[in-house]
Amino acid sequence: MDSTETWSRRRLLSCTAKLASAAAGIAIGSGAIQSWSPRTSFAKTLKWPWPYKKIEPGKAARIGYEKYYEGACCYGVVNAIILPLREAVGEPYHSLPLDAFRFGHAGVVGWGTICGTLLGCGLVTGFIAGKPGESILNEVIHWYIETALPAYRPSSPRTNIKHTSRSNSPLCHISAGRWMKRESVPFDSPQRAERCARLVADVAAKTANLLNEWSEKKFISGHEIPVEIYRLPAQSNCTDCHGTKVPEIPK
Amino acid sequence: MDSTETWSRRRLLSCTAKLASAAAGIAIGSGAIQSWSPRTSFAKTLKWPWPYKKIEPGKAARIGYEKYYEGACCYGVVNAIILPLREAVGEPYHSLPLDAFRFGHAGVVGWGTICGTLLGCGLVTGFIAGKPGESILNEVIHWYIETALPAYRPSSPRTNIKHTSRSNSPLCHISAGRWMKRESVPFDSPQRAERCARLVADVAAKTANLLNEWSEKKFISGHEIPVEIYRLPAQSNCTDCHGTKVPEIPK
Repeated sequence: MDSTETWSRRRLLSCTAKLASAAAGIAIGSGAIQSWSPRTSFAKTLKWPWPYKKIEPGKAARIGYEKYYEGACCYGVVNAIILPLREAVGEPYHSLPLDAFRFGHAGVVGWGTICGTLLGCGLVTGFIAGKPGESILNEVIHWYIETALPAYRPSSPRTNIKHTSRSNSPLCHISAGRWMKRESVPFDSPQRAERCARLVADVAAKTANLLNEWSEKKFISGHEIPVEIYRLPAQSNCTDCHGTKVPEIPK
Repeated sequence: MDSTETWSRRRLLSCTAKLASAAAGIAIGSGAIQSWSPRTSFAKTLKWPWPYKKIEPGKAARIGYEKYYEGACCYGVVNAIILPLREAVGEPYHSLPLDAFRFGHAGVVGWGTICGTLLGCGLVTGFIAGKPGESILNEVIHWYIETALPAYRPSSPRTNIKHTSRSNSPLCHISAGRWMKRESVPFDSPQRAERCARLVADVAAKTANLLNEWSEKKFISGHEIPVEIYRLPAQSNCTDCHGTKVPEIPK
């Protein structure tokens, strides 16, 4: 990225922040912004959300790391949270077929869309926390895109890796791509697999942490979900894909 | 997009196709490409995949359209497939809390990543078809990005809309954005909601169709998943985001 692009990006982010502030102001001032989607209350399902008992984040991380090597990223995070709950709670967790979530690998059957670790987080928070689970997922995504990862250090690593990277995106394609560039390895390398295994551990531990806080009524959501801020399903890094020519949004 | 960009894109796609052919050639020739992820066999879970009985695609479409207005896109597709199976099969479908899948809205809690309709397809094919479900999802994604949608015409539309669009992407941000540009409406408009409700109907019907074919052993997978073709979690529309300066992929 050259300096012109950097400057343009800063300008755009500044504009985006102002737009977001303006939108927030309108929302607070009038409550009149039309909803992005239907706002009916959740259906009253007797057995949902499912019961939760606190999980030790380090345990979730260790399970996640190992399970990545069995069924990839989404499966890894789901196992990291559900297996401890099978022990601590029992049903309905035993009846949930965790293999059904393998499809999230490599950004959903290899398309590079949402990182499978985040999809796994969305699934478990959906089962466990219901509507507040969306806020937990949103916080995990913010932490994921802003943090240099992976941070987890396995006691017996399959492969040694050297670098961390900040994804600035929840997309597998961008997140994995940025790390691969730093490490100078291709996607089909043992190093990239190890990075993703450790990322599973990180996301599993973070998810367990926030679920624990939520279960103690201590969870505080620090962010609105992006579609409420931008009135568009998006994030604030427009120039990463659009360059300096950001398309106009219809009013 | 100006003519230079168009030309560059064509050139790039041509290169990508050649690369893909070359990769396929290597794969067929040697079988030696290192796997993108672990290739262990699925765990043997007694109760999984779940039993399936054929679903009338028109019925799935009608349910999906209505359920969108209750809980958005991912929830809509999941309901469109699971509710008929609750009637036809019973358990374990009754025990699955469908509200848990609302988080997929607007590209996963509003981040604009994978279209929630495709996430819904991935979930139901994961429960029903297991590993072949990944091929079904991959075919649905190909159809989704290549087809002018929405095609569904509700008998009693909530809102009239004028246009269809070809997304060329499985991402909510791009798919919804392209349609919004054609229709000249913002995301928080009744028209955009109607477009997504009809899209739920389309994806639900397509998913039911392919699941029916699969249940009759007539399903044929026409595509490898992208990470196997490109050795990267990606699709072939690089210039949509990267412009003409596509980053080098580490070897």
